[in-house]
Amino acid sequence: MISKAKVKHIKALQIKKYRKEQQCFVVEGAKSVAELLTSGFEVLWVAGTESFIRSHRVLLSKRNVEAVEATEPELAAAGSFQTNDGALAVARMKPNTAPVLQPRELALALDDIRDPGNLGTIIRTADWYGIKQVVASAETADLYNPKALSATMGSFCRVNVFYTNLADFLPGYSGLVYGAFMDGADVHHVNFTGGGLLVIGNEANGISQAVGKLINKRVTIPRVGGAESLNAAIATGIMLDVIHQSKK
Amino acid sequence: MISKAKVKHIKALQIKKYRKEQQCFVVEGAKSVAELLTSGFEVLWVAGTESFIRSHRVLLSKRNVEAVEATEPELAAAGSFQTNDGALAVARMKPNTAPVLQPRELALALDDIRDPGNLGTIIRTADWYGIKQVVASAETADLYNPKALSATMGSFCRVNVFYTNLADFLPGYSGLVYGAFMDGADVHHVNFTGGGLLVIGNEANGISQAVGKLINKRVTIPRVGGAESLNAAIATGIMLDVIHQSKK
Repeated sequence: MISKAKVKHIKALQIKKYRKEQQCFVVEGAKSVAELLTSGFEVLWVAGTESFIRSHRVLLSKRNVEAVEATEPELAAAGSFQTNDGALAVARMKPNTAPVLQPRELALALDDIRDPGNLGTIIRTADWYGIKQVVASAETADLYNPKALSATMGSFCRVNVFYTNLADFLPGYSGLVYGAFMDGADVHHVNFTGGGLLVIGNEANGISQAVGKLINKRVTIPRVGGAESLNAAIATGIMLDVIHQSKK
Repeated sequence: MISKAKVKHIKALQIKKYRKEQQCFVVEGAKSVAELLTSGFEVLWVAGTESFIRSHRVLLSKRNVEAVEATEPELAAAGSFQTNDGALAVARMKPNTAPVLQPRELALALDDIRDPGNLGTIIRTADWYGIKQVVASAETADLYNPKALSATMGSFCRVNVFYTNLADFLPGYSGLVYGAFMDGADVHHVNFTGGGLLVIGNEANGISQAVGKLINKRVTIPRVGGAESLNAAIATGIMLDVIHQSKK
């Protein structure tokens, strides 16, 4: 059983303010918790079904993590989703430090991606394409939001997200800055071999004016049919695939 | 003001059973309602802000659609979302008839896409790439679900979705059937010039066994990094972009 104090802690961590104050966050679901246990994150404690704890016994004891047994309904009641398939954990956030980008490395920058699901899906997609670093504007959704974490499907363990003011960050970046616009050059014909930062804009408004001024190369995905725009995560996925192919 | 009877009708239409019974659905948001008014859907009535009704006066009267004036908070209270930026409408569903696919036409088939947001995003992305026809398994989320409609961003007006049993439908289809798998041929090296049907599988389980047997060509998006899989809508977007490029 999960103690009342622990449930209270988990509930508080659903709120961004408390997460920030305590520098802790909750991970829900067996797959995500399993990935968390093999990641660099400090894990404070885990609650899991008897079966989850049994199958992760070695890892839990190696990392010296407290494990509390709980049923699936108990896990679901403590967490933020309607169901939980076996585990829940509280972990410590990593410090918000600027990434050291390698020459020719491709990284993403997010200019106010507001929807946690979109953010999580972008992180998952970035991970698929081997991207390690994401620089996010302060107004971008919180990675530690339960919906965002869940949408990463465990990729939050492999992709670092650094929150900052993009308009302050970009002038200090020495590589090329690409930006996804409706009116840029066809992304299929752009040279990405030198790596760089690809900026993805807000779902409704695209890249802000302040950040737009700092873009070296505007790129676009040509439209064929009737839709006015693509979802931000979809556009990110298509661009990352095109970039990866162009570098082969 | 929206009458109590109309509000009651809208609320009932949030439930799939009633939508099916009445063959009607609710469209929320100024952009979606505006697209609805220029589409082939029969519109029963519209509720809109004074400004929405004024700017769509000609269209409303040409189509002989009853227009009720309402404030944004009234529209939000009647609808299923927290906010509404100006309009709401009730429209009649189109009959669920099998599409007549043209030779060399590319169409999508969805094998149990359960999340309404994913379905809507897939329809929006299909529309971006000029795809007109989607064949969906009976277990796929309902296009007329408010979240699905909203995620299409109006593309439900341009893309037809036909619900059927895919395992029954596919044997009668004369073109090539491609399927998105984790272990298929690299999608970048596959020939799509003859068009065909691209099957996208369920978010968690991929393409079902019954449908899998009817696939002529298994295709995949090669993975570079650590994520186990891509979101179904992201995979669809990437494949549609690759297919469009390969046909150029």
